[in-house]
Amino acid sequence: MLRACRELGVRTVVVHSSADADSLPVRLADETVRIGPAPSRQSYLNAAAIVEAARQTGAQAVHPGYGFLSEDADFAEICAENGLVFIGPPPQVMSALADKATARALMSRAGLPLPPGSVRTLPTVADAVEVAAEVGYPVIVKAAAGGGGRGMTVVRSAAALPRAYARTRAAAQVAFGDDRVYVERYLTDARHVEVQVLCDGHGNGVHLGTRDCSVQRRHQKLVEEAPAPALAAATLDSLAETALRGALSVGFTGAGTVEFLVDEAERCHFLEINCRIQVEHPVTEMVTGVDLVHEQLHIAAGVPLRLRQEEIRLHGVAVECRVNVEDPDHGFAPTPGRLDRFRPPGGPFTRVDTHGHVGYLISPHYDSLLAKVAVWAPDRASALDRLDRALGEFDVAGRGVRTTIPFVRRVLDDPAFRKARHTTGLVDRLLADRAGGGTAPAATVPAPATVPAPAPAAVPAGDAALADPPVRRTR
Amino acid sequence: MLRACRELGVRTVVVHSSADADSLPVRLADETVRIGPAPSRQSYLNAAAIVEAARQTGAQAVHPGYGFLSEDADFAEICAENGLVFIGPPPQVMSALADKATARALMSRAGLPLPPGSVRTLPTVADAVEVAAEVGYPVIVKAAAGGGGRGMTVVRSAAALPRAYARTRAAAQVAFGDDRVYVERYLTDARHVEVQVLCDGHGNGVHLGTRDCSVQRRHQKLVEEAPAPALAAATLDSLAETALRGALSVGFTGAGTVEFLVDEAERCHFLEINCRIQVEHPVTEMVTGVDLVHEQLHIAAGVPLRLRQEEIRLHGVAVECRVNVEDPDHGFAPTPGRLDRFRPPGGPFTRVDTHGHVGYLISPHYDSLLAKVAVWAPDRASALDRLDRALGEFDVAGRGVRTTIPFVRRVLDDPAFRKARHTTGLVDRLLADRAGGGTAPAATVPAPATVPAPAPAAVPAGDAALADPPVRRTR
Repeated sequence: MLRACRELGVRTVVVHSSADADSLPVRLADETVRIGPAPSRQSYLNAAAIVEAARQTGAQAVHPGYGFLSEDADFAEICAENGLVFIGPPPQVMSALADKATARALMSRAGLPLPPGSVRTLPTVADAVEVAAEVGYPVIVKAAAGGGGRGMTVVRSAAALPRAYARTRAAAQVAFGDDRVYVERYLTDARHVEVQVLCDGHGNGVHLGTRDCSVQRRHQKLVEEAPAPALAAATLDSLAETALRGALSVGFTGAGTVEFLVDEAERCHFLEINCRIQVEHPVTEMVTGVDLVHEQLHIAAGVPLRLRQEEIRLHGVAVECRVNVEDPDHGFAPTPGRLDRFRPPGGPFTRVDTHGHVGYLISPHYDSLLAKVAVWAPDRASALDRLDRALGEFDVAGRGVRTTIPFVRRVLDDPAFRKARHTTGLVDRLLADRAGGGTAPAATVPAPATVPAPAPAAVPAGDAALADPPVRRTR
Repeated sequence: MLRACRELGVRTVVVHSSADADSLPVRLADETVRIGPAPSRQSYLNAAAIVEAARQTGAQAVHPGYGFLSEDADFAEICAENGLVFIGPPPQVMSALADKATARALMSRAGLPLPPGSVRTLPTVADAVEVAAEVGYPVIVKAAAGGGGRGMTVVRSAAALPRAYARTRAAAQVAFGDDRVYVERYLTDARHVEVQVLCDGHGNGVHLGTRDCSVQRRHQKLVEEAPAPALAAATLDSLAETALRGALSVGFTGAGTVEFLVDEAERCHFLEINCRIQVEHPVTEMVTGVDLVHEQLHIAAGVPLRLRQEEIRLHGVAVECRVNVEDPDHGFAPTPGRLDRFRPPGGPFTRVDTHGHVGYLISPHYDSLLAKVAVWAPDRASALDRLDRALGEFDVAGRGVRTTIPFVRRVLDDPAFRKARHTTGLVDRLLADRAGGGTAPAATVPAPATVPAPAPAAVPAGDAALADPPVRRTR
């Protein structure tokens, strides 16, 4: 966002917590305001402090990024009340889409296919039992206020349902202050496919093709690619058009993502709409040549959409992975610490987005995402080879710091993944293979309905320092 | 090259001097061989040591990179004699093209337009005086064995010719062991436009469009872009086809560049053919989606060209600049030293090729090129804004180390450059503006015919350390 503003000649103010005083966004901004201490409740989730920073600096608009308040309709409302342009959809649209039950009802009305399950929320356990019996097990109990992989429990039998129902409601109450839940058929062996859309405030919209994000661990995406592979062109076209129709039907504006699950028979099931830029947006930028953040800024400025559907052409394949500071061998526990070495990959068709640098202290307070590495190539096999090459040259080390790089490289090496025959069960299968059990779980392990607390940095450094080169050296 | 090999599953051996034991290529290679001490005569120019390293490690092919032996036909010959594939054209083609007089004669025969001047070399000063009088002053005296901006002297009057003729011959004898020279009309206010070609060993060839490299200081390119701006489409098409015809006519194979000067009337004049990958090749990769080094490797392996002309489409605009460790305020003197800070730019459509890293000791022994920053955008204005943004976030600092970044940003900000109305005289005009004289020289200052010796690192560091951020900070 800072880069897009700089390119467009827009001055930037970055708000930050004490923990991020030395971070890259702070270094890149024209102006910075420290809005509170490290804990996000007192800084990045403090709407009043952000609005006050905007007032002090004379800012005209707020870009919410992703995470934190980016999908908070109340925050969008507060911005509007204070004369600030919130770079996203109108608050009432955000509010309707943030409520999954409402979003499902709206999208169903717009003709989008839902997974078998309840359109309304289910106030009693008896309602849940009835719906589950209708759609068949396994089912998934989802919090209406959840999203992004949070607030859901998979249930494999009628016996387990009452407890899961109660637990999900209680957890949703704690996490979201809203305990409404609904029940859907849980689709195993499905692909996560999503559609990027851009809509302006004048009723115009375009889609920018599909992304596959099936490589997930506990509903958190690890590897993403565009366009979605292995599906029939007709399926992809229909998905993209359906998604755009759904977004336009509710008056969506800005950059959004319409998420689907696609089953073995290529049937598509609507999941949710995200009202913000996604972590994985670079792969769409690479195959379309469109800078999505530039378009967000233009739309927020009231400019009619500068792109027409027929001008948007997809070229080649882009694949991105997330480099998280987590230990894949210990349940992906975060491993914050100071970076002693940090040299991201370079070379042709390789993009790195990162806030890391040598000497950077990775805070335990926030998300463990350190970098995104995205590559482009004319075809999928070459793109996977290129991503593996890029990850192989990524040099990150620090006391106690581990990353997901080795795990992502295992994904890239997996025969099913190479053939694009993988589903959302891939990561669990790889983890089970590693555990040596050989018995992969039948489906994804559900995520807890609360935000995981970061673990202490107690894992020893994984990378030995490079030895002095002898006259001849082999690796 | 290492990246391309890794992506294609080819093992790599890097040969290096003692000074480069800690360099990025050494870190990225599968295997490394130290072939000698820092001075290039004893390492990178030592053909026997390179061939021996290949023998020891069982290498099958040699990629000569750019600089050093990359255009040395004798080295290509030695490789062949030792059963090694030299990744480039056949030695006899290299040899013919390295001799500028021969290259001019060959290209003239193939129908390429030459600048007014002598096709043959001129053994006496009287010959030179006669040709110069014919074509009109200013003229340029060029060493037949020169190239890449070396071995040439601009002459503005008949009075100055005899001395320039003698000096150029003497300098060429020292630098190249060959004192043959010829005389051409010196084109002021021209653009440097070049065409990228790929030819296989089976008579097939394609061109990949044009690049403009008019932003030069002493014939060394500073900023390059693809495609060449501001010229009529018909001119560009004709240039590209002419260039490919010229390359195919001499049995060229591999990746090559055919260079032209284009005058105000859009008349094109052949300059030379380069037989290696160019420093500026990324801009062509970005607008075509073709990885030129992949194609070099396939051609060297004897595979017929995988691209057909009609499949090569140009998208958008790419601009690259060189980040040299030189002091633009002191005659671009090299400023080697240790890098205390090094954080290259990132973000969308931004590519950085560099061997730099934090703690890296820039050797005074070699070229001062530290990094190349290349960006892509749908149009030229956006690409220039993006490059300026990228350079603005490039954080390089070290005791005594200066870079060309501020100077390149002045180029990007120049009104004539923004409008693509600049010629090869741009850099001198900017330097003269800076000097405060206001009287720009009428033409480019000629380069000395010898390789410049690096200056000692005595310039103070230009970048102050970042202060601790206050609560609110403005830049």
